Amino acid sequence: MKLSSRNLEVGLGKIYDVIVAGGGAGGLSAAIYLARYGLSCLVVEKGRGRSFWMQDLRNYLGLPPTTPGRELLRQGTEHALSLGVDYLRGFVEDATDEGDLFAVKVKVGKVNSLYPIFRSKYLIAATGIMDELPRLSDMQNVYDYAGYSLHVCMICDGYEMRDQKSVLIVNSEDRINTAFVLNWFTPYISVLTHGLCSVGPDMRKKLADHGYPLYESPIRRFLGENHQLQGVELEDGTYIEATTGLVAMGARYHNAYLKGIPGLKWQGENLLTDEWCRTAHPRLFALGDLKQGLNQVAIAVADGTLAATAIWRDIRRASPARKWEERLLSPPRSPAGPSGSSLN
Amino acid sequence: MKLSSRNLEVGLGKIYDVIVAGGGAGGLSAAIYLARYGLSCLVVEKGRGRSFWMQDLRNYLGLPPTTPGRELLRQGTEHALSLGVDYLRGFVEDATDEGDLFAVKVKVGKVNSLYPIFRSKYLIAATGIMDELPRLSDMQNVYDYAGYSLHVCMICDGYEMRDQKSVLIVNSEDRINTAFVLNWFTPYISVLTHGLCSVGPDMRKKLADHGYPLYESPIRRFLGENHQLQGVELEDGTYIEATTGLVAMGARYHNAYLKGIPGLKWQGENLLTDEWCRTAHPRLFALGDLKQGLNQVAIAVADGTLAATAIWRDIRRASPARKWEERLLSPPRSPAGPSGSSLN
Repeated sequence: MKLSSRNLEVGLGKIYDVIVAGGGAGGLSAAIYLARYGLSCLVVEKGRGRSFWMQDLRNYLGLPPTTPGRELLRQGTEHALSLGVDYLRGFVEDATDEGDLFAVKVKVGKVNSLYPIFRSKYLIAATGIMDELPRLSDMQNVYDYAGYSLHVCMICDGYEMRDQKSVLIVNSEDRINTAFVLNWFTPYISVLTHGLCSVGPDMRKKLADHGYPLYESPIRRFLGENHQLQGVELEDGTYIEATTGLVAMGARYHNAYLKGIPGLKWQGENLLTDEWCRTAHPRLFALGDLKQGLNQVAIAVADGTLAATAIWRDIRRASPARKWEERLLSPPRSPAGPSGSSLN
Repeated sequence: MKLSSRNLEVGLGKIYDVIVAGGGAGGLSAAIYLARYGLSCLVVEKGRGRSFWMQDLRNYLGLPPTTPGRELLRQGTEHALSLGVDYLRGFVEDATDEGDLFAVKVKVGKVNSLYPIFRSKYLIAATGIMDELPRLSDMQNVYDYAGYSLHVCMICDGYEMRDQKSVLIVNSEDRINTAFVLNWFTPYISVLTHGLCSVGPDMRKKLADHGYPLYESPIRRFLGENHQLQGVELEDGTYIEATTGLVAMGARYHNAYLKGIPGLKWQGENLLTDEWCRTAHPRLFALGDLKQGLNQVAIAVADGTLAATAIWRDIRRASPARKWEERLLSPPRSPAGPSGSSLN
């Protein structure tokens, strides 16, 4: 059921088996599996995550390669709702382990916000990341190209960059090394620091040896039309011809709400998990971009499958065996009947 | 390009980066990623694998839950072909490690068969499993219900079995333990051995304690209409009312072609792999149902992503760096141009 500020009591009156923080590819896959295991769950989705911005989801089996990320999210949300999942637009502010339950505080609404606290046995953290983009005075100029011909994921979009003149935009010297992977797809790479970092002599020599020019003046604007990049103009007046680009400026992790939970193991901003996506906390799972590994839709979807299955095993094994008792059998349940709370 | 007995020379004239044995969910996902990494690959698909028989793919994010498995395969095959993947209908008979290359012998055509041998640097084993079904004199009677109301995967279809009278069909005493997981979804379980195994006193007592009747006579026929099971008739004349069923008789593994490769690590018929789906052989990967883990479409698709990415990293790191050389730049390549062999 869709929850909103008008019917929060529906969720506040329950103890969910699982709260899924984040309704992207990983969170929705987890919700679908959880519902099909007969477990109750609440998905909290802030909106406009990484997959929302994908113009074309070119490498996910089963969908035409022109499918936008938001179509995957729309279909998945509808699928989850059809299985009885609760779904709330909101921002997860904080998660606290109360012992047997997690208390999850959600900000609902941008004005006159409400701050309900929902409770669950398990928590799935699937809030993902957002790629950093170069900040220009006119951000619309960035959004006109980002996700179209200015990419943030080489694995996703390197294929579209093949042998084109490209810009690689970085914010640290270390990230310039991305050029020496990107050159698998194209060797025509101009490196732009946007004025954000200094570059030492070793890296300058390495770039020169490969023939990759380095530009250290800030970007003034991207040029092109209909989302197709044609070049980049720098603050110092330099014009760089480029029909594609890769932004390698790192990402913001939506994980602040987890920082108060003791004992979690982090590698940088990524959570470390086992092969079932279980963190060092036995009732907390992390999926997709939030955990170590490839940031790919296919991986997040499988992570949702794994986490939901591990939680089902936990809950099932802790539940009493259901015996065949005739008194429970009549009236017979329809094969197409709704999910029942009796499974819990 | 689609290959067949008429144009095998197209593939015989190449050394592929990768041969993908099996064009199910895992193999097709791998092929799509490999092609997008600019690597050449040949998919060999025998047809009619496990996902082909799925009537409804109810738990794969992005597709409506009524999507048949063969629609996923059709879309994925079209996707892979559009990226320049070679695709051949055939049966992988044998794989031999020749040192730097694998030689993969394929049977093409059921009559007047040809046995071409293709070569590749890497091999992805994605040939999966086929679930065993009870053998009746009239197999059409089994196929009328299998995949509809007679299921083979509890994770996939337990939801559809909820609180219905069900039969659990096994071929060994050990597999009767499936009842004590299936009872999460329904406790109305009749266990049928189809006359294939004996059952000891401890298991008989456990079943009796749960109220699950045991029937040891062979199945004569399934009864119902329009693929909807209503009951099962045994050879001894017993009639068992049931609107759903689960077959837990194990599976046949399509892995015979790998048995001559030394050093692989097996657990039963499953290949053991690392977190990138790499087997103990550094150039051989195993995906999906063939490796240890959950037999789920979402897992196989992610496995394809992982294996393709690991292979790309291997090949890329072993390749010379591409420098910006102006002489290679003209004429400029179209952003939408085809994949070039120059990447290899």
